[in-house]
Amino acid sequence: MPTFTKEQLPELNQRFRTNLINSLSGVKTAFLVGTADMDGLTNCAVFSSIVHVGANPALLGMISRPNTVARDTIENIQTTGVYTLNIMSTEHYKGVHQTSARYNHDESEFEAIGGINPEYIDGFFAPFVKEAVIKIAMNLAEIHHLNINQTYFTIGEIAAVYIPDELLQEDGNLNYELADILTVAGLETYYSARKIEQLPYAKK
Amino acid sequence: MPTFTKEQLPELNQRFRTNLINSLSGVKTAFLVGTADMDGLTNCAVFSSIVHVGANPALLGMISRPNTVARDTIENIQTTGVYTLNIMSTEHYKGVHQTSARYNHDESEFEAIGGINPEYIDGFFAPFVKEAVIKIAMNLAEIHHLNINQTYFTIGEIAAVYIPDELLQEDGNLNYELADILTVAGLETYYSARKIEQLPYAKK
Repeated sequence: MPTFTKEQLPELNQRFRTNLINSLSGVKTAFLVGTADMDGLTNCAVFSSIVHVGANPALLGMISRPNTVARDTIENIQTTGVYTLNIMSTEHYKGVHQTSARYNHDESEFEAIGGINPEYIDGFFAPFVKEAVIKIAMNLAEIHHLNINQTYFTIGEIAAVYIPDELLQEDGNLNYELADILTVAGLETYYSARKIEQLPYAKK
Repeated sequence: MPTFTKEQLPELNQRFRTNLINSLSGVKTAFLVGTADMDGLTNCAVFSSIVHVGANPALLGMISRPNTVARDTIENIQTTGVYTLNIMSTEHYKGVHQTSARYNHDESEFEAIGGINPEYIDGFFAPFVKEAVIKIAMNLAEIHHLNINQTYFTIGEIAAVYIPDELLQEDGNLNYELADILTVAGLETYYSARKIEQLPYAKK
């Protein structure tokens, strides 16, 4: 069985190590994050590090590295205080992946990439992704700078969420098989999700 | 289309809101976290908030709330400095979910739950899950207390990772369809993952 210790990891080929370590967080949802700068110039980038932080207040967190293509996203969130989180269906996986390319600040992914279009809802400053199945408006709450590797952990409060009627169950859960939600492992391998079973609250 | 604003969310039925907000982080991998207290009494709990923090050093983060069944996990990590992250295949979904029940501190989930057994590898103090497909030994790096809702963001460095030969691709990516990786949305709905396509590095 292949084993890699913390002494061996730095010795690996950089691309192999990057793929391996990025894969170890498993399969997770590929979100498109929509932002704009103070002039309204839009940006759209794929993030797969969105985590639940709390339900009341409703908080979501995300990890981003300042030296990546996510830089515009974080700068826009810091200056405007708002962003959107967009859950996509699998049919859009090529467009979602294309947002990870290194576009310049003055090039909007919304214009450069087919099938990924901006949408403005209820006067919210940041653009949503028109093609998304679930759209979440976020207000920046706090940004934690992680000294350990110069990464940012950004926490936002949900300002509003937009959900198609057929995906919302009576108990508040969302039907992600029906949504055909797009997920990703590592930096470039896309997956779909098939429901196994919803289980009751676990008791001992 | 159902819409919930931040003014409306606090008015919702608590269980509905909890399910809805927990669902909004999408489908993500269900990890079993293995720990032990200073006396070696073991604990195993499901976490779905594991995120990639960095590849070199190799860092993973996770969110936990102190007032949940995850309390033993965090206390054990704080006192011993070590824990394990275990990726499971779908066949174990009922056992994985059962770890979310409220067992007392002196009851080990490894003993109480069938099909979830401890395994010790290379002298690492924290128990792995024997049935896991991918096993990761973690050293605690830092714990951030999030004042916004009294949640902890725990960052650990990968001490070692154990991967079956057939799941490791030549490029360092892991084949999670072959692993039949277990994923979850919200608190109780389990999913499997089907590979769509591995795409090349995106260029503009």
